[in-house]
Amino acid sequence: MQGHVIPEPSVTPTADLDEVESRLCMPLVQAMQTQRAVRRLTTEPVDDAVLLRLLELAQKAPSGGNRQPQRYIVVRDRAVKEQLAALNRRSWGWLRRAYGPFVKTEAQRRLLAAVDWQAEHFADAPAIVVACVKVRVRSWPPVLAGTVDGSIYPSVQNLLLAARAVGLGAALTTLPLRPARRARAILGLPRRVQPVCAIPLGWPRGRYGPTTRRPISEVVHVDRYGNRPYR
Amino acid sequence: MQGHVIPEPSVTPTADLDEVESRLCMPLVQAMQTQRAVRRLTTEPVDDAVLLRLLELAQKAPSGGNRQPQRYIVVRDRAVKEQLAALNRRSWGWLRRAYGPFVKTEAQRRLLAAVDWQAEHFADAPAIVVACVKVRVRSWPPVLAGTVDGSIYPSVQNLLLAARAVGLGAALTTLPLRPARRARAILGLPRRVQPVCAIPLGWPRGRYGPTTRRPISEVVHVDRYGNRPYR
Repeated sequence: MQGHVIPEPSVTPTADLDEVESRLCMPLVQAMQTQRAVRRLTTEPVDDAVLLRLLELAQKAPSGGNRQPQRYIVVRDRAVKEQLAALNRRSWGWLRRAYGPFVKTEAQRRLLAAVDWQAEHFADAPAIVVACVKVRVRSWPPVLAGTVDGSIYPSVQNLLLAARAVGLGAALTTLPLRPARRARAILGLPRRVQPVCAIPLGWPRGRYGPTTRRPISEVVHVDRYGNRPYR
Repeated sequence: MQGHVIPEPSVTPTADLDEVESRLCMPLVQAMQTQRAVRRLTTEPVDDAVLLRLLELAQKAPSGGNRQPQRYIVVRDRAVKEQLAALNRRSWGWLRRAYGPFVKTEAQRRLLAAVDWQAEHFADAPAIVVACVKVRVRSWPPVLAGTVDGSIYPSVQNLLLAARAVGLGAALTTLPLRPARRARAILGLPRRVQPVCAIPLGWPRGRYGPTTRRPISEVVHVDRYGNRPYR
């Protein structure tokens, strides 16, 4: 079940909205099968109108009760990017020290090198989108607790897929937003707006392409956990 | 910036994998622009192979450190569906009593009616996918806290978009998984597997179609919250 073979589109930087629209017509299956985190970005500018079109598609994703609590901060200002870059370096430092010793495979080494590169060049990304959620005053009744992330990550995935189709490099990270208190201060977020994740965007140095994943038979259970008839 | 007009595809139930693959070639922009929660489902069967293909695309979505902690429970058994339906009815009961009095617009009334319908027919859905995350033993270092949802909702959005392209009705809900303790018991989930959301799937009674959203200029801020130059 690998899907039809679809030729790889050419992806050069563009600010032409007709061209963007035509790239957004990429077959859904192709966008999903070739989406991957692209962390190495050029400093080539990304047009505001292109970014807005991607965010418009992000906003089309579902949210709890269709309340549309998604808010996006598009960070363009060098000083703000530098502050997020500093937070990111700090969080990545912790994580790298914790996980570095366990890195064994070539794929893990490549991932580490890409995140290192991203940390060094974080403030050079043409744009960093910070995805936030405007939360309610009270999370009541309790059945609503925890619907914050479910109202923003589907929209972030739309943004990543649309970026892939247009040929923009993108990757999801939460590291530059920890601790949240610091991120809120940098971005001037009011108490009710919660920062969830950041997506640096730019034209890729690397390339998109097919990804490998665990066989689906390993992760699909039927009726009860542990019942894996497709294995 | 409304995008090119693309004709609506016909969407009749199918179990033919070539037909499914061809539907999955829907232009990305069309899938995103016409995705909506479809809660009214027929009892027409949904083929296992079709479901597995959608889950395969779900699994293509990014996860923290590419650890791929996503696990999917495909609920087909009537008895298990009934138990989830009972939890859903209970949670929806609370929510409906809390929000019912504030429902004013026609759109809100339609949403309420659709969720009522879903609650009444929950166990009749041909399949209910419960999206779970296999968490680590310790969430250390603290910068990793909260990456659970970010590793499952992008994959859920892939599932919803792929369902839309194939013509399957789907909707995201967390209500049948509250309280989590009860949902875990029903699904036999071990301590380290956390249920996040449920997606009833089936051929739609309703239809997909364009959705309306807040103007993007209202939700996009530049550099700091409150700076909305596109307004």
